[in-house]
Amino acid sequence: MSTPTAESSTNAAAADAADVAAGVVESSDGSPSRLDGQREGAAGHVWPVDPAQLAADPRAVQKVLDGRWAAVRDRARATLPAAWCQPTDHLSTEEHRTVTLDRLREIVATGEHRYGFAASATGGLGGDSVGAQTVNFEMLGHTDLSLTIKAGVQWGLFAGSIQALGTAKHHEKYLRDAVELDLLGCFAMTETGHGSDVANLRTTATYDEATGEFVVHSPGPEARKDYIGNAARDARMAVVYAQLVTKGERHGVHAVLVPIRDEAGNALPGVTLSDCGRKMGLNGVDNGRIMFDHVRVPRENLLDRYGQVAQDGTYTSSISNANARFFTTLGALVKGRVCIGAAALAAAKTGLAIAVTYAERRQQFPKAGGEMRDGVAEEVTLLDYRTHQRRLLPLLASSAVYALAQDDVVAELHRVTNPVLLGAAPTPGPQKALEAKAAGMKALLTWHATRSLQEAREACGGSGFLSENRIAQLKGDTDVFTTFEGDNTVLLQLLAKHLLSEHRDALKGAGKIGQAKAVTTSLVDAYAGRTPARAVAGFVGEVVTDISALRQRGSAKSGAAGSSVGGGAADDADPELFDRTWQLRMLEHRERRTLESLALRMRKRAQTGASGFSVMNEVQDHLVLAARTHLDAWVARTADAAISRADDELAKVLLSRLLDLHVLTLIEADRAWYLERGLITAGRSRELTTAVNALCAQVRPHALRVVDAFGLPEGWLGAHIAS
Amino acid sequence: MSTPTAESSTNAAAADAADVAAGVVESSDGSPSRLDGQREGAAGHVWPVDPAQLAADPRAVQKVLDGRWAAVRDRARATLPAAWCQPTDHLSTEEHRTVTLDRLREIVATGEHRYGFAASATGGLGGDSVGAQTVNFEMLGHTDLSLTIKAGVQWGLFAGSIQALGTAKHHEKYLRDAVELDLLGCFAMTETGHGSDVANLRTTATYDEATGEFVVHSPGPEARKDYIGNAARDARMAVVYAQLVTKGERHGVHAVLVPIRDEAGNALPGVTLSDCGRKMGLNGVDNGRIMFDHVRVPRENLLDRYGQVAQDGTYTSSISNANARFFTTLGALVKGRVCIGAAALAAAKTGLAIAVTYAERRQQFPKAGGEMRDGVAEEVTLLDYRTHQRRLLPLLASSAVYALAQDDVVAELHRVTNPVLLGAAPTPGPQKALEAKAAGMKALLTWHATRSLQEAREACGGSGFLSENRIAQLKGDTDVFTTFEGDNTVLLQLLAKHLLSEHRDALKGAGKIGQAKAVTTSLVDAYAGRTPARAVAGFVGEVVTDISALRQRGSAKSGAAGSSVGGGAADDADPELFDRTWQLRMLEHRERRTLESLALRMRKRAQTGASGFSVMNEVQDHLVLAARTHLDAWVARTADAAISRADDELAKVLLSRLLDLHVLTLIEADRAWYLERGLITAGRSRELTTAVNALCAQVRPHALRVVDAFGLPEGWLGAHIAS
Repeated sequence: MSTPTAESSTNAAAADAADVAAGVVESSDGSPSRLDGQREGAAGHVWPVDPAQLAADPRAVQKVLDGRWAAVRDRARATLPAAWCQPTDHLSTEEHRTVTLDRLREIVATGEHRYGFAASATGGLGGDSVGAQTVNFEMLGHTDLSLTIKAGVQWGLFAGSIQALGTAKHHEKYLRDAVELDLLGCFAMTETGHGSDVANLRTTATYDEATGEFVVHSPGPEARKDYIGNAARDARMAVVYAQLVTKGERHGVHAVLVPIRDEAGNALPGVTLSDCGRKMGLNGVDNGRIMFDHVRVPRENLLDRYGQVAQDGTYTSSISNANARFFTTLGALVKGRVCIGAAALAAAKTGLAIAVTYAERRQQFPKAGGEMRDGVAEEVTLLDYRTHQRRLLPLLASSAVYALAQDDVVAELHRVTNPVLLGAAPTPGPQKALEAKAAGMKALLTWHATRSLQEAREACGGSGFLSENRIAQLKGDTDVFTTFEGDNTVLLQLLAKHLLSEHRDALKGAGKIGQAKAVTTSLVDAYAGRTPARAVAGFVGEVVTDISALRQRGSAKSGAAGSSVGGGAADDADPELFDRTWQLRMLEHRERRTLESLALRMRKRAQTGASGFSVMNEVQDHLVLAARTHLDAWVARTADAAISRADDELAKVLLSRLLDLHVLTLIEADRAWYLERGLITAGRSRELTTAVNALCAQVRPHALRVVDAFGLPEGWLGAHIAS
Repeated sequence: MSTPTAESSTNAAAADAADVAAGVVESSDGSPSRLDGQREGAAGHVWPVDPAQLAADPRAVQKVLDGRWAAVRDRARATLPAAWCQPTDHLSTEEHRTVTLDRLREIVATGEHRYGFAASATGGLGGDSVGAQTVNFEMLGHTDLSLTIKAGVQWGLFAGSIQALGTAKHHEKYLRDAVELDLLGCFAMTETGHGSDVANLRTTATYDEATGEFVVHSPGPEARKDYIGNAARDARMAVVYAQLVTKGERHGVHAVLVPIRDEAGNALPGVTLSDCGRKMGLNGVDNGRIMFDHVRVPRENLLDRYGQVAQDGTYTSSISNANARFFTTLGALVKGRVCIGAAALAAAKTGLAIAVTYAERRQQFPKAGGEMRDGVAEEVTLLDYRTHQRRLLPLLASSAVYALAQDDVVAELHRVTNPVLLGAAPTPGPQKALEAKAAGMKALLTWHATRSLQEAREACGGSGFLSENRIAQLKGDTDVFTTFEGDNTVLLQLLAKHLLSEHRDALKGAGKIGQAKAVTTSLVDAYAGRTPARAVAGFVGEVVTDISALRQRGSAKSGAAGSSVGGGAADDADPELFDRTWQLRMLEHRERRTLESLALRMRKRAQTGASGFSVMNEVQDHLVLAARTHLDAWVARTADAAISRADDELAKVLLSRLLDLHVLTLIEADRAWYLERGLITAGRSRELTTAVNALCAQVRPHALRVVDAFGLPEGWLGAHIAS
């Protein structure tokens, strides 16, 4: 790891950048911007900030970023060896698998693998904390990602299913061994033919009353279990997700424990195992395939917390609705999604930390107007280049912002699922809301990781391509995160459908008046989107329920702008850009309008008698947008609240600037949407770019301070260029 | 490879999508779009096209895409083995290197490695064709990319430098052996401390008159040659780029031949070799590092076509200007950049071909309103999903469009550099223009590859992550393309600076009137960008030199739009979206305005007395934008011309739709820029999204037809899921 860096703001390059930030900032057409000079936004934000105000103590910033489970993070920092952060992609597949399993066993010595199990189910071993388990997983994600995923397979998915879906008899018989690695297992859900669509898995578990056994069977090649972690080599037992059939009747997907290998590692009769072979990354995890040919297991092997089969084949369940039962069974996946998002965020932070560290050291090209030193021309530090700042700093800022939001996701996960871990019945409402959020955040964070690591790789040039600098492996390992534990596009649609149903419920609850309001708002949208005069109306700012009020406001603003034609540029003088209230309203308005127009569009289309498929398919990109806009608004709001709660003033200022950079980058990227709806003027749209550039220059001297606040111990970057 | 697919338009899923395309298309706010119904654009484009008109014969489309060197492509198709398309990333580094060298030797048997050498310099071996060499390189890029890059190192860079920078004595002594692989070599340019900034390499070649030798030396760790292909294992000789010093005077970077290993492969005295080790990809290429400790080579080892050192140390050159000499020396790199762009395009095509083939086979989720078949619900084919279409089809279209443009780049490369290959002196003007274009296209195509392969990977889900499906290796191998042979961001700035100097020359040539016009245009820009009324002005369409004319036009349109307030939506009824003239004007106007505002901004900033560094740095993102907008316009114009030259009418229609999809996707992505400047209305902006969606649906039934037109022989996809 790089050393903390009060120095960074005193070297020549950093001072240069600070000058840029403190000096005149140009708008993109070359005219002096109205950003010059101090001014105060509506919510008390001041621009530009005195550079000294950003020089927060990295430890104070880290305290905010560490969030609720800081103690778990500190324990991981103290116990996880830096050697696990060294690249392993030079190893052969078999060597890599061996190293990974060895490391998994080393974790057992720390006890940190037990956080997420119930003490009552494990003879006192368990830590009774889903939150701690998830945060520990994130910390592991800073080290060896094959190890992280293998840990997730063994403890999260395999042992986790026994914990969550099994009952006392399973806990007593298997759970301690699974937790302590005396029983290695796998989670056999995905099939060759069905991944995202779990409800239509083809594997069957048919109860045979004659023998009191389940017959587990793969009816064809599509039913083959595929990509199953631990299945190619290590697992002795599988939690098999299969269509449960009793007395000729199907009861939907249930989980059954099926031994697949003997002690010596040979496939058991009826079980055909194969190896998925080399992958883009995660080669320390032995992904494999499983076919079952009428494999018989005792009735007790059904994980029967939510569905039981009696000796005579009678099926019972406390959840009478088959669909609800299916989602309860799958509810165990929600933690996995939060964990994948966490590991993705960890990898993004690591990669950006490497790239930022390198960008502070690496120099290239003589500085125009620079001095000669010892006969060699002064060169430019990479991070002083504007393109380099634009490439790395918004992603660095987003990583900090996402960390603040993720802490809330974990807290919600803990609040909703920890009682279930401890034996309570699931609460369908909160569980559904949590699942929707976890799905969305998993998509957001994993795409953030893919993008961050790509930028980090390119920002390091040829060095970024060498394994010794770790980014190669981080990229390879995390690339699958965007599609496993749920394809991101599918997950965003899951969230959008949840938002639609909430929207529908809200309309129902609001009754006629509420519906009228909603329709009016939608009409306003339609009106605004089509009326050129609205292009100068500025941001509406609140739910507008009165068209005439909007018209007045629009025309008033239009008149004001009109008076500046040919003369001034009044419309880019607005102080609101750095006002958090304005920023949040921008994001929240986009969220609301996107969802409302989606609902309206679907309703209209359905009324034309279009098929269900075509209605959903034609709005699919709109569904994805609705989910993203929801997440963007929620993340910004949540991060803002977390910053407000902090007690260190300088840390607040620095984090607040990072949130500015995150939010303004988002709005800049989607400024066409705001322009189309007349919510920002052309002048303000262009000022967004100026503002993001200026923020980058302002944050730049503090980039290593942000990296330090990620709290990665010595050696955890694992990159030669950043060691 | 998939089989040609007249069938694809007859299956149920495809027919569905065709229905969507032929039926009502909705705008994003849910209202019926004005795209309904046939209509004709100004340049005769008709929307929507009769679906039957898109059913071109893939061979006819391939003929257009194959371009000028179709015969070279056909020969490569016939000789390169499909086995070379199988993934090799399961091999250990050493195994992979061995396989790659073996394959390199197999190429020698085909003779296709000789295209780019002069017959006169190789005892009649050479093919005298830079164009054929480049296109052959592209075809090789469809197979094994380690092999492709190793071929590029040996034949393009090592032997190519001897050919281009050497004289008869070098050609006679080394060239035949280098071409026929009896002498393996490397191209030692990049150093640990200097990559993009070649002018400031630190290695020195100092002439010692006393012995008539050059002393090649690495003065420090920064001067170490780094990332050098072939250096870790195979090369016996290096073309070393070093600062030439004679009689205490520096003459800039020159190339010197330096033996680095003996026959047995041991490092020669004074030469320290090391291995860059494992990389993200291209592990068949042995990248290494070289340090020279006062290594002596005879005077004859200077490649002295453009700079000579006499026995007494007198330096002479036909190019008196040191800077011009430097760029002539580096001119040999231009072919390398065109080749990297070509290989990137090949990899993008391969990856997209795999993903599209898979998306036509893979089904997931029951179709809402679908039928039951054999007790199993009808499922949706991936490529029928709108998000999947949006993800893959614009990139597929861009790949075809880029292929048409790339053929022109190769033609220009051939026109400018083939005479130099055959002995003529370089022509500085055309050479500079070619270098600028090659730099820009290399950036464009390599980023296209990175993006295409990322989408292809995700579109294939977990299958895309397995090595057996090849995309993993394609991604790993090509990732470095965006930063080697010139970092893309640096290359785009190189192009932008060339455009600026052309712009300056044009102003000079135009004299006072031209300058006044240019300034007026810039004023118009400033005016337009700040004047809300311009938001309804529609596209200006031509160079506007008269503000009052613009004002009249703007206000007239404004009035017309004003009459529709609250009632109609006249501004989204414009038929121009599918009019090629409009499309090209949109791109060309953006190109011109971006460049002009850049020039103006730099001039203004320089007048304030800002340092050279800060002037350039503050506009760095603007430089990159100017280069991209130039390339976008040039590519579209070039592809349009190529389509016009085609003689098959159906091929023209299909390619024209692909160009529509490519261009409208570009404009949609940058619609904020057009909105900000009032060049499109909000209505048209939203209609762009509708149009891209509709084009995706229209192209979708023909996606495999486009894949087939890429002309990849049986087995060349090399992916299990697409075999």
